[in-house]
Formats: sequence, structure tokens, C-alpha cells
Amino acid sequence: MAAMVERGIVSTTGLIAHGRGEAFDYLLGEATTPEAEAAEAAAAALLSLAQRPVITVNGNAAALAARELGDLARACGAPLEVNLFHRSDRRMDLVCDFVEGETGLKVLGRDQDAVLEGIASDRARCTKEGLLSADVVLIPLEDGDRAQAMVKAGKKVISIDLNPLSRTSLAAEVAVVDEITRAVPGITAWCSRFRTRPEEARGVLAAFDNHENLGSLLQRICRGLEEGPPK
Amino acid sequence: MAAMVERGIVSTTGLIAHGRGEAFDYLLGEATTPEAEAAEAAAAALLSLAQRPVITVNGNAAALAARELGDLARACGAPLEVNLFHRSDRRMDLVCDFVEGETGLKVLGRDQDAVLEGIASDRARCTKEGLLSADVVLIPLEDGDRAQAMVKAGKKVISIDLNPLSRTSLAAEVAVVDEITRAVPGITAWCSRFRTRPEEARGVLAAFDNHENLGSLLQRICRGLEEGPPK
Repeated sequence: MAAMVERGIVSTTGLIAHGRGEAFDYLLGEATTPEAEAAEAAAAALLSLAQRPVITVNGNAAALAARELGDLARACGAPLEVNLFHRSDRRMDLVCDFVEGETGLKVLGRDQDAVLEGIASDRARCTKEGLLSADVVLIPLEDGDRAQAMVKAGKKVISIDLNPLSRTSLAAEVAVVDEITRAVPGITAWCSRFRTRPEEARGVLAAFDNHENLGSLLQRICRGLEEGPPK
Repeated sequence: MAAMVERGIVSTTGLIAHGRGEAFDYLLGEATTPEAEAAEAAAAALLSLAQRPVITVNGNAAALAARELGDLARACGAPLEVNLFHRSDRRMDLVCDFVEGETGLKVLGRDQDAVLEGIASDRARCTKEGLLSADVVLIPLEDGDRAQAMVKAGKKVISIDLNPLSRTSLAAEVAVVDEITRAVPGITAWCSRFRTRPEEARGVLAAFDNHENLGSLLQRICRGLEEGPPK
């Protein structure tokens, strides 16, 4: 990640956010929990059944998992749209170039021609073709304001966020509380399975309850805390 | 903190560590818990009763709380000794200059003439006059290897670390699990009180059990997790 800061892909505040994620991952035992697995299946079901799915990519997501996100984009037919918290034209070009180089896919975001309602600042900027028209959006490592604005705009939101109590996780239809390089391949595998099994996808989705799943995860973290150090 | 990276005081890995701390502080409700208060009193008691107390200062501690550490150094008569995880002569000078400017105190560390046993790498370096001769060491934001090496060297270690399960917190005689800018003034206030009350300091210390205190704190974090978002 330090190298990604030097390249301009990750911002210094992105680095602090990454550290916060590391702490929560430590509490999860640095492994995909059964709750995360269930959320990854539900996320894949939502993406598979979507009309216009979109995957947003910020600096941290690009630095950590550009290739994995590219594989998922192919598996579920969703475009990648770059959105930066700390935006400059130069950084936008850098991140778009980086993601396109890593994935071999053309990304959205260089020409932001739309605005998401309810957010001050540059973070509101998006594309009409991508995020603004999407019905289902996967938002890895996204902040709470944007997550809530997307929900308000009627989109079904899938988050990837290691904090089970973040506004992002709580606002999401499906909150995947798992480290991004474990979560994204997990979702991709389920997408491949659902491609020929839409009924199974509908069943998985109907059985999934985000708040119940997060509650179960919190209990798991507590059991780990009371047992002492995870390793 | 981002500005402190640009000045060379904080390293990029220090920034990630800071983020980890933020996540744990979030779980504590960003406030000094009763367990932290008890640990701060015990820490002050240890410092007050010490023969040769020393306070170590690394880049993050300097960036976040140089002045507060200077006030504590004056209150308990302990020198400040700079120790860097990512050490270079230039960065050592930068951090020493910064801490001296903020505190008005002369710091130890520019001339490291001793080595702490049991640590590979530059992190073993310290001063004979300071850390090597100390009986009680306050180590804010320290890594587990150095904390354990100090314990092995027979020193009574007081940590300030937001992770209650870190090797540092578990190795310490007194683990203060509190944000550094809250913890240090708390310890300083107790030091002032104990200056004329050594018997009270001995009583506080005798009544303090680090593992019991950490266990109580973990239960508090769990209660918070099960209640949902702290704010």
C-alpha cells in the first residue's frame, strides 16, 4: 500500500482507512466467516439478477483488488466505474489507467456527466451511463455518505467493508464484511454458479437478511474477543 | 497525520497503524473507559515509584502527542527517548528536533550507544543512559517485539495501545487501552496527585491486575458491539 501511495493511486487518508480495515479484519481472525460467505452468495445473487449492475472502484479498491474486480465485472457483466474520494483530474487518470491496465477492461469515470443527489463535494460526481442508471451497485470500501445517497436514489447496494457497524454496512442491502481480496473472488465464484441457476439465486436472496447476518457476525467477533488473541 | 507524513515525522506504515488504532477507538466509543482510567492511575503509580523511568517516543507518538508527553515527562521526572521503527539518521534528527521544539525538553536517542537484546534490526538500538538503564518504561504505540524484549530485560512496561489484544498490551505490566491524547494527560494528572502521596500510589498499584482489567475491557467492547453503532 505504501508503494501505491507513492504512485498516486492511494491517498494518505486512504492509508488510514486501510489501517482501520486491518483492525476489523484482525477481529474476524483474518478469514472469511460463515456470515461473510452468506453475504457473498447474496451479493452474487443480486448482481446476477440485476438489469444494470455497476461496480464502483476507488483508490484503495484499485490498489488492493483491481484484477479481482475485473474478473467479477466479467463474470456478472457489470462495468467498473472509478469514483475517488480525494479527486483530481490527474489522480482520476492515474487510477483509470491503472485499473484498465490491470483488468484489460475499459472503465467508466473519466467523463463524469452526472451527479448523485444528496452529497456535497466532488464525491457526488458519477456517470449517467454507469452509476446513475444502475439498479444494483457493488461499492467496495465506500464511505457512508455515498452509500446512503445511493440507497436514497433507489439502488440496491452491496457493500464490501470490514466494519460491521459502519453506516455503509448498515445502509446496504447486502453488507459483505470481509477483506476485499477474499470477498471479490468469493462473489465471482457464486456469480459463475448462478449464471445457469437463476432460481437458486432468487432463493438465496429471499433467505438473506442483512441485519440478522450482521448481528450474527457481531456475536462471532465477541466470542473471539472473549477467548483472547485470535492467534 | 497526513501533514506529518509530508514532514517526515510519520511513516506510511505508521499511518496504517494509526488507522488500526482508530478502529479500536471506535469500538471503545472514542472515550476513556473506566478500565483505561484504572490503568492510567496504575501507570502513574509505577512512574511515580520508579527509580529511573523513561518514556519512549516514536514517529506516531511524536505527531499525535509530543506536548502531552513533554508535560508527563516533567510531571514524573522521566526523560523522553526517541526510538523509530523505520529509522534513518535524517528521520531521527527530524523527530528529535520536532519533539524538542514542541516540549522544550532535550531528548535522548540521537546517539544510540546500546542495544536491547532479542530484537533484530535497527529497532534494537537505544541509549545506555535512557532505556537500557530504566526500571520502568512507558511505551506509547509500541510494537510487540520491542515490548516483549523490554519485559525480558526486566523492565516494568507501561503500554499505551488501543488494541487490547495486541502482544504489547498483553506483555505490559500496565496496558493503557486509550487514545494517546486522552491517555497521557490522564497519567500526568495522576502523577501530580501521587507526588505527595506515595502510599496511595502503592495501594493503587497493588490493587491493579492487568489481565483482569483487559478482560473487563473486552466485555465492555462486546456489550457495545451487541448494542450496535456507538453513536
